[in-house]
This record gives sequence, structure tokens and C-alpha cells, in this order.
Amino acid sequence: MTKVRPISGFPEWLPAERIVEQHFLDVIRGTFELHGFASIQTRAVEPIERLSSQGADTDKEIYAISRLAAAADEPTRDARLGLHFDLTVPFARYVLENSGKLTFPVRRYQIQQVWRGERPQEGRFREFTQCDIDIVDVGELAPHYEAELPLVIAEVFSKLPIGPFQIQVNNRKIPEGFYLGIGLTDVKSMLQIVDKLDKLGPERVFDLLVAAGATAEQAKAALALAEISAPDESFVNRVNALGVRNETLTEGLVELAAVIRAGAVHAPGLLSADLKVARGLDYYTGTVYETQLIGSESYGSICSGGRYDALASDGRTTYPGVGISIGLSRLLAKIMPSLSASRSTPSCVLVALAAESDRPNGMGVAAALRKRGIPCEVAPAADKFGKQIKFAERRGIPFVWFTASADQDSDSVKDIRSGAQAVSDASSWMPPAEDLWPRVIS
Amino acid sequence: MTKVRPISGFPEWLPAERIVEQHFLDVIRGTFELHGFASIQTRAVEPIERLSSQGADTDKEIYAISRLAAAADEPTRDARLGLHFDLTVPFARYVLENSGKLTFPVRRYQIQQVWRGERPQEGRFREFTQCDIDIVDVGELAPHYEAELPLVIAEVFSKLPIGPFQIQVNNRKIPEGFYLGIGLTDVKSMLQIVDKLDKLGPERVFDLLVAAGATAEQAKAALALAEISAPDESFVNRVNALGVRNETLTEGLVELAAVIRAGAVHAPGLLSADLKVARGLDYYTGTVYETQLIGSESYGSICSGGRYDALASDGRTTYPGVGISIGLSRLLAKIMPSLSASRSTPSCVLVALAAESDRPNGMGVAAALRKRGIPCEVAPAADKFGKQIKFAERRGIPFVWFTASADQDSDSVKDIRSGAQAVSDASSWMPPAEDLWPRVIS
Repeated sequence: MTKVRPISGFPEWLPAERIVEQHFLDVIRGTFELHGFASIQTRAVEPIERLSSQGADTDKEIYAISRLAAAADEPTRDARLGLHFDLTVPFARYVLENSGKLTFPVRRYQIQQVWRGERPQEGRFREFTQCDIDIVDVGELAPHYEAELPLVIAEVFSKLPIGPFQIQVNNRKIPEGFYLGIGLTDVKSMLQIVDKLDKLGPERVFDLLVAAGATAEQAKAALALAEISAPDESFVNRVNALGVRNETLTEGLVELAAVIRAGAVHAPGLLSADLKVARGLDYYTGTVYETQLIGSESYGSICSGGRYDALASDGRTTYPGVGISIGLSRLLAKIMPSLSASRSTPSCVLVALAAESDRPNGMGVAAALRKRGIPCEVAPAADKFGKQIKFAERRGIPFVWFTASADQDSDSVKDIRSGAQAVSDASSWMPPAEDLWPRVIS
Repeated sequence: MTKVRPISGFPEWLPAERIVEQHFLDVIRGTFELHGFASIQTRAVEPIERLSSQGADTDKEIYAISRLAAAADEPTRDARLGLHFDLTVPFARYVLENSGKLTFPVRRYQIQQVWRGERPQEGRFREFTQCDIDIVDVGELAPHYEAELPLVIAEVFSKLPIGPFQIQVNNRKIPEGFYLGIGLTDVKSMLQIVDKLDKLGPERVFDLLVAAGATAEQAKAALALAEISAPDESFVNRVNALGVRNETLTEGLVELAAVIRAGAVHAPGLLSADLKVARGLDYYTGTVYETQLIGSESYGSICSGGRYDALASDGRTTYPGVGISIGLSRLLAKIMPSLSASRSTPSCVLVALAAESDRPNGMGVAAALRKRGIPCEVAPAADKFGKQIKFAERRGIPFVWFTASADQDSDSVKDIRSGAQAVSDASSWMPPAEDLWPRVIS
């Protein structure tokens, strides 16, 4: 048997950390549902040909699956399955597959693991959890959804102990129209280079743009555009001041201004226009989003997405959509060190036992507490009370319950943090609300 | 691009069905937590050598994963990962890996997908969800945990609309000791044959036992033991009446009687002793559980598990455990046709729009409702009110909100099921409690 050890890129949490993660998951799910997003869950696998060619090096990162001892008569299609690397491609497939049974526009959320066989590094894993919302319609998708999605995310993050953040928005039509307007026709290559601006810096990006066929003047203009960012609509004038005219560019400016305007009203200070945001995946066609933790900008985006017009299409009907995805594993990897749980177990009460023969009685007390929503467990053994209290202490369980016995007439409960003990009744006692379930402490 | 189609063995739910599944998941999680089980989640993959040789044909069902375009310098260990086929083996590994950071006995629950490359058939999938609870201790595990776990499961199932069920319990020491007592030494092979009693019938099992080396008399005795079942401790006398004496057998009878006794007190009528239950996996060493839906016995077990003494061991220390696992996908596949959700979206309210220019106002109403925990969404477009009401109707959204406008002085809300409409205020209106979130209807 192999020695047990972690597998690089496949992180796991300890129970107390998992309580923090569950708090995040509950807030995310709760907020998504308050906004009318319905949950779906898709299978972990897709045909590999559906996963491939989505850009951003995803092809070589796909994990293929195969039965360890496949029979000789194994249907070949089974050999062509891979683990999904995001939740957008599977959702687009789900929409196509179930289009007759869904009511459009579809508002769905999806919280699942995804897998990418890339090199593990800070904040980058091979298995990680994404939390996505998307809205997809038939034929046309109203632009107001592009303004709505980042507001939902702003609400989620405002409820979580993650500190200040900023959602950066761009619209791919802006650089695309701009590049065409200055005579750069290989828009895709240019975008991919500019996307690396934060990582490589302007000089290196300038050199790469020139190496890719831009003139020095074109490269300078592309950089001038990418360097524009603003918390308000002032970005429009700054782009116009660059003197480039193009219809797609104008369309992009109008669309981005609408998103920024809605942000100023409904999530003031949380959204900004940032014209260097491009996103690696090929399927985006309009608005694109990234999110930074303020003070940890170099960590990269913790929540990204965008509008995609052609991802879901069966040849006759197209289902345009817009979506945004919280990189939960990535976010937690960054902030987990600053958070803790008030205890490592759901149990609020440990029911102590004076003797092993008292166990059925202790189980009755526990059942009565649970009936009223109080999480609890019975002591593992009728050890000395001091040892049973230590058991509770080590897990952070705040209360120990003592059943009536030869020593005492009635049940009593002890807050082992303060030492206060009081007569109590399992059919009416309630802990303080803040002790009922484990809390996250930041 | 491939045509979209389901993949056999990888089922998915529609949004309304997913609401039913989520209700089950919430009840399962809530009950597990009330009983003090802490959540953990393990990575989807384990080294293949850890997954293999656990019995029950699991080896050839393991899905290996490999990067689609693995570089020539790919570390070999990455080529040796497989998707887990249950949650017990990963949990045992997690305990070994984190033993220094856990407090024993560990009570954990785990709700995740697992994968088995077997032939899909009714109730058997290649990807499915399991919901496990386990208790693991260091060195020794107190026997009362074997009585506790089925009580938790009985409570879960009593809260779910699944109809009558029965948890069948056996103890492997009973057939093992019995077989040794009658001179059958290849206990493992005999157990595997008897495990098929329900599927093959007694005559075929008799033949197989004889073919495997049993005398006719031994085979008859083994069958007589397997046919014993009882809702109470009467099984002990019936086993003793078979006249076989063996120490392991006696131990098993005492342990099983304790489980059945606790069941009679805390979950009357829900547990039975059933001496043919064996379980396929090799790692079980004592109590074993299966669960049948009454009236659908031939469907097989929807919740199984048992005690394992040696699964988690690092050579020096052993961590014995007991666990039980709800086969959620299997259970839902059977009963989903009899269940439905009161609506296909979380939204309780659709905020209608008189004009597109009213959208910021509508978003304000929605924000005020959400602040008080009411799930809602704003209409996709300022269509005629009749069309907006139809939109709500198609999803089962019970209420449509009309904001104040030229036509009316104040906001009003309409219950579109009854047609009743009343003046209302987004800062105080509440829907009836039963309409707030979607309900499961059986």
C-alpha cells in the first residue's frame, strides 16, 4: 500500500476549515436562490470533442477517463469521455439537450468540482470548486442581464468575510472594434497578448504586439486603450479621446456604460470599467468580468465570466447567455488563513454519561434536544466527568449536559467556557442563538 | 460537434427534479449535523493501488484518469490516479493522512459523487451521489456506535417522502463463526455465494455452495442460517437451535442483539435482524447493514454499510470504524416519479415592469424583498402584463408584483393562482410561509 500523502493540486480541508467552506457555500447558494436562480447539477464528464478547442490551453489540461480494465468489447464512445474543466460548457450542452423542457430565459446556478490538469501553483488547482450563475435565452438575450449578474456577485461578496473587492468589467467589442479601427486585423492574437498586461508589464506586451505584426504606433494605441480604467462612465470620453472610430467599438462602449451605470446605482463603489480585461476562453463575445481582492491584485481573479452568444447552438437555434463564476477554491486558498470556525463539529451539546447503563437515557435527552433543532451527541464513554468535559473542550462544544442521577434530582447543563451550570430540561432549554451552530470568525 | 445526448449511466435532473433532490440533500445534511457529524469532502481521485483489491469486482470498475495530452515529462504518479468508487476508502485514507490533526472518535459525514464503470441498469449508475456517515476511533471502537448509526438513518428516512422502509442488520461474525463451526473453512467464498440468495434463490445457492466444496449437509445448514430474519432478538434462539457452537458466532449474536435492542427502543419497527445480509466489499468485519423500500424489495438496498476494523491502518496504529451510506441517486431514481416540486424556480415573486424604464425601480423592489428573505426576480421584459403573468405561471411562481405607476398610487401584489390582488409594500409584505420556498409534493 502506498504511503498516504496529499496529491499536489488536489487540496482538502480539515473539519474546521470545511465549516468555513460550508458557510461560504451556504451564503453563495442562499444569495443565488434569493435572486431566482434554480440549481442544476451536470454529470462530471462530457464527450472530449465537446470539451476541446475552447481556447486558453484547455485542451491539453483535459483529464480523460477510462475504465481500468476495459473489456475488449468496450463501446468506443466510453473511451472518449473527459472530466469537465468548467461549468459553462456543460451547461450549454444541458440547455441544448433539454431545450424542449426548459422555460427561457433560464436562470440557473451550479456549484460543482471541475478539473484541469495544469501545473499546480498558488491559487491554481487540478481539482477545484466553482459556483456559477448564468442566464440563457433563445435567439436574443436582453442586455440588462449583463448588468444584473455582477450585482448578484457584489451581494454575495458583501455578505462574506473576504475584505474589500472590485469587480472589473470590460466588453470585448471595445478592443475588437478599436483594433479593427486602427488596422489590426488579427484581433484574437492581439487580445491574448494584451490579456497578459498585468503579468508581463507594458514594455514586454509592446514588444510582443510588434512581434505579432503590429506597428509601433498600433501597439502604443492598443496599450493606451488597455490602460484605461474608471469607476464611472468617464472611460467613454477617454476612449473617444484616442480618436478611433468603429461601429463595434461604439456598441461596446454603450453596453459597458450601461453595466457601469447600473453598478453605480445598485452596488456603489464595487464595479469598475477596466479595458485591459480580456479573459482567456474563446467563447466570450461581449461583456467580460474579473474580480480582484483589493490588496491582493497580483493573486488574480477570484470571480470571472462574460457573455457568450454562440456557445450553445444546435445549428438551427442559438441560445446566447451570460454567466459569472466564483472560483471558490481559489478564493478560500487565499483567505482561509485569516478565518476560523468557532468549533470543529456541528454539536452544540455533549450529553455526558454517569455510567454506560445511562446511555439509553442520554440518547433520549439527545433526541429531545435534536427535535427542537439543537445539534448534539452523547459522550463516547462513561469516563470521569473531567475527561468528558475535555472531550467537549477539544472540539469547541460549548455545553455539557448532565442527566439526573443519584447525585442530583434534575438534569443540568454547563457552559464549559464560563463554568456556569444551571438546572435544565431537554424539552425546553435553548442555547444562545450564536452558539446553536458553529460560526465563522474572521 | 457531437450531437447532444444523454450518456448511459450518467443521469441528470431537470430543474424541478433537482429541487426535489436538494430537499433530500438538505434533510440528510441537516439530520447528520443534528447528530454531531462534521462534514468533510475528499478529492475525487485516489492512487489506483489504494482503490484496488477491495472486493466486489470494484477493480475492473475503477475509472483511471489521465491528462489528454500528457507531456513526456509527466510524473508517473499522475498516470496512476483513479476516481473513487465509494466514500469509505477515501475517508480511511483521510484519517490516516490527518490523524495528528483530528480528535477521535471522529464523527464525519460526506456527500459526494462517486464513479463505477459498471454496466448501467435500473438503479445502477456510473456516476452517483452517496451520503455517508462514519465514526472512526483509534485502536478500539466502542460497539454502541454500531447501534447508533442505523438510528440516524431511520431518522433521515422518516423525514423523507419515501414510504415504508426497513433497515436489515447482520453481523459477519455470525456466518463466519457458524461456517467454521460446521467445518467450512473458505468463509469468504461461501459468504459471497450466500450474498446472492435474493438474486439466485436457495436451490441455485445450494448448488453453488456444493460446487465450492461444501457437503450437502453444510450447504443446507448455511442456507438455514441465511433464512433467519426477525424484527427482535428471537433470531438468537433460532440460530442456537441449529446446534452449532463457535466463539465468533456467539460474539456476533451478542453484538447483533445489542443493535436490534437499541432499534426496538429508539426506532421501533424500522430495524430487523436479517442473517443473509453479507455485503460485497471485503473490508467489513462485524455489523453490516442494508435497507429496503418495503414493496420494492427486489430493487435492492438503498442504504448500506458496516463495521470495518482494519481499513485504516498505517502499520503501527489501526483506526476501526463503522459507517453507513445512503445511495441517494439509487433512491431518487426509484421514487422521483412519485414526487414533484411546487415550482421549478426558487422565485416566490415576479416583479412585473410597466415599461423598460421602470427596471431600476423594479430592481429596488426586488432588493427590498430579498433583504427580508423573499426569493424573487424582475421580469425579463416589459411585455404586456398578461405575458408577464404567463411567464410566472409557466414556472409556478405564485406572486406577481406591480409597482406604483401612472395607473395606480401604490404597489400591489397578485396571487396568480387565486387572482386575489392587494395593495402592498416591499418593506413589509410577506408571502404565506408555505409559498416562500418551493415545496416537495408527494
